Amino acid sequence: MHNHITSDILDLFKQVIGESRLIYTVEELDTYAHDETEDLRFYPEVVALPETPEEIAALIKICNNHQVPVTPRGAGTGLSGGSLAINGGLMIAMQRMNKIIEIDERNLQAIVEPGVITETFINTVAEKGFLYPVDPASKGSCFIGGNISHGSGGPRVVKYGTIREYVLNLQVVLPNGEIIWTGANTLKYAAGYNLTQLFIGSEGTLGIVCKAVLKLIPKPSQDILLLASFASNEEACEAVGAIFRQGIVPSALEFMERRGVEWVMEHDQIQFDLQDNMQAFLLIEVDGNSMDELLTQCEQVNIVLEENNCIDVLLADAASQKESLWHLRRTMAVSIKSNSIYKEEDTVVPRATLPALIKGIKEIGAVYGFESVCYGHAGDGNLHVNILKGRMTDEDWKHKLKEGIKEIFELTIHLGGTISGEHGIGLVQREYMPLKYSELHLNLMRGIKKVFDPNNILNAGKIF
Amino acid sequence: MHNHITSDILDLFKQVIGESRLIYTVEELDTYAHDETEDLRFYPEVVALPETPEEIAALIKICNNHQVPVTPRGAGTGLSGGSLAINGGLMIAMQRMNKIIEIDERNLQAIVEPGVITETFINTVAEKGFLYPVDPASKGSCFIGGNISHGSGGPRVVKYGTIREYVLNLQVVLPNGEIIWTGANTLKYAAGYNLTQLFIGSEGTLGIVCKAVLKLIPKPSQDILLLASFASNEEACEAVGAIFRQGIVPSALEFMERRGVEWVMEHDQIQFDLQDNMQAFLLIEVDGNSMDELLTQCEQVNIVLEENNCIDVLLADAASQKESLWHLRRTMAVSIKSNSIYKEEDTVVPRATLPALIKGIKEIGAVYGFESVCYGHAGDGNLHVNILKGRMTDEDWKHKLKEGIKEIFELTIHLGGTISGEHGIGLVQREYMPLKYSELHLNLMRGIKKVFDPNNILNAGKIF
Repeated sequence: MHNHITSDILDLFKQVIGESRLIYTVEELDTYAHDETEDLRFYPEVVALPETPEEIAALIKICNNHQVPVTPRGAGTGLSGGSLAINGGLMIAMQRMNKIIEIDERNLQAIVEPGVITETFINTVAEKGFLYPVDPASKGSCFIGGNISHGSGGPRVVKYGTIREYVLNLQVVLPNGEIIWTGANTLKYAAGYNLTQLFIGSEGTLGIVCKAVLKLIPKPSQDILLLASFASNEEACEAVGAIFRQGIVPSALEFMERRGVEWVMEHDQIQFDLQDNMQAFLLIEVDGNSMDELLTQCEQVNIVLEENNCIDVLLADAASQKESLWHLRRTMAVSIKSNSIYKEEDTVVPRATLPALIKGIKEIGAVYGFESVCYGHAGDGNLHVNILKGRMTDEDWKHKLKEGIKEIFELTIHLGGTISGEHGIGLVQREYMPLKYSELHLNLMRGIKKVFDPNNILNAGKIF
Repeated sequence: MHNHITSDILDLFKQVIGESRLIYTVEELDTYAHDETEDLRFYPEVVALPETPEEIAALIKICNNHQVPVTPRGAGTGLSGGSLAINGGLMIAMQRMNKIIEIDERNLQAIVEPGVITETFINTVAEKGFLYPVDPASKGSCFIGGNISHGSGGPRVVKYGTIREYVLNLQVVLPNGEIIWTGANTLKYAAGYNLTQLFIGSEGTLGIVCKAVLKLIPKPSQDILLLASFASNEEACEAVGAIFRQGIVPSALEFMERRGVEWVMEHDQIQFDLQDNMQAFLLIEVDGNSMDELLTQCEQVNIVLEENNCIDVLLADAASQKESLWHLRRTMAVSIKSNSIYKEEDTVVPRATLPALIKGIKEIGAVYGFESVCYGHAGDGNLHVNILKGRMTDEDWKHKLKEGIKEIFELTIHLGGTISGEHGIGLVQREYMPLKYSELHLNLMRGIKKVFDPNNILNAGKIF
């Protein structure tokens, strides 16, 4: 159904963006053959580095005419294989479209290209007094375009919502090469089906985002960070729900297992007074404009934590202290990954069922013979499960593990959750979709895909 | 393409829900022939009052098999004719599905049926300390199902977001009679196309919502309301943007024109010290848990207001004062409508362009010979424009006015906005959709419709 890129087609690409922005030697293609998903490798035949929506449109039109598969790619930090060129063909890499086009201080909006690094944007708007609260752990390298395609979150979702609440409008190139804006630059929108929301989280299967209008909010001037330790995962998770029931909405509420903290300490040579009975941690941030008010909130949080058998609470109000606590959380993935062959699953459940989820995961691990290190955005019920190969045989790792993962997802779904909170389905979670969705439901998704991409050229084989 | 309801088909309906929950006498149908949109009347042939999703599924399956058009109806408070049975056929009215099924205090979630009155739900969860901030002016009568179908907002969107941010999961009956849940009961979701978000604002064209899982948040304990008066609409609208630029996020920021206030005073026999130079008003609410913090915010707001030539500021902290100020705003639509034949347009633009929008609306009115009273959710850039018939001839009102409305929408779109912020497109705004959307764009919407409803039985002829 798909065709390879012939030298004639390559010539057409060259006419659009010139030789210098096309990559097709094996050595150079190597960078584009993988993302951060395990050790998967798929080589595109050609990579193009467009600089304008019109160039993308022209490229995609050629591909559509010749049935050449197209894979859009952001920074390649994805964890579900969404940007892997599993069908070969053309990869459209967005790194040269990295301009912050406008920061509209009157409307608290910004227009960006998809290749802007998330942290660059956060810092740029912060200098003007604005908060853009979508900050995934990979914020130092991931692109805003990739964040949009995955419906990204990060620690501050718990108070501020996911990227879904910050994307007002998108300029996209459709698979037929037409360019449209999906909506309007407004905070409200009730004018027909909301295509902006449909594109968010569609993993580059419906079109290629080439501009985004993002909402900004005033940046709170103060924050305080607490690190609370517990004797068990379950006690830490129980405390999460209790904090909300006290009427407090923290600006971050992260969970970390002891083993994750130990590996960060080891990986980064950090000293940290880790007592023997500390098995789990919560990182709790509150923010606002009144330090008095925040201190009052911290006192309330403290009471809740004590009621939930917290061992110790560390309060960080100096910038350096806060930085080192956040470092613990942010480098956990990297530290675990440098220690073991792993597989990361991105479970999400209603918040109060977290204790049941984490308990179940450990039990499933015991049956299938794998260990796991869990951490994540506990305030959202979003738990990242890092499964370690440990002493599993290669054979079991390759085959038996799938059954274990299936059981983890079945538990997640049973608890009212779903199989990804923010990492997306991409390639590697696709096989688990039928656990959650009926064939009828998947066919609705496939039908939508067909409306936008009748020739199935764009990121085909992802999600479903 | 559509068929009428024969006596055989009526018998099939009776087998599903019995005689007593079917309405088909002309007198009884009258209630169901209109909503709050102008004076439009369209009679369904039969109205059904189902009590379960399974009954809806069985009814819709019969209609799908016999190509009978189906119109879902909530409370009939819509302002765009979305629930009018323009093709006759079966109306499925949701009023008997009015249960709050569960309030899950551990997860801050609730499960409701679509016929729950919005205010009933707000008050029920408030008693438990939760805030459900979606409160359209019609909250005392509108249904949550209708709110979902229109992507409703209300005054508190400015701080808390629209209903889009509170719907976690929907149980829907599809036009083929199948019942699905669109997503999961989670705060984050990255598992394929977000059908929940697609259903929100789809105006009953894709399926019938029969259960909704809603997010709750802790209810702030304190609030203060300010009423600021200005000598011109433009000065009031300029102040709106200035408040946000000061880093303040009010929990409501409403605009009202003098004439609207006068009509409420007249309509409800209210005394209010309306000085001659007061031409426009802002109703500004701040909320939180610390009164000290709120008073500080009010001082900051006061400074901004003074800098923007505010005439006077009234501070309401007593419940009765607040209630009477909110009454001004909430009964404005009713007061205007009792005074004149009118037509209401629901414009939305980026917030800082409000002064240009309101100035342009008055200029267009001068050209076409109509007056207008504007009010709305200024903090969101959402302005409701009530066009008054006044001295316009019936002929001009019927034909020439359309050109004027077209110009208003063209201005709205030129300013970066769109043709509905929260009222939806329904029947009466459909003809203006091509002003904003290309044929290609509309065809994407039509394509999605076809995926869900290949026989086009459900609320056909709405939106596009």
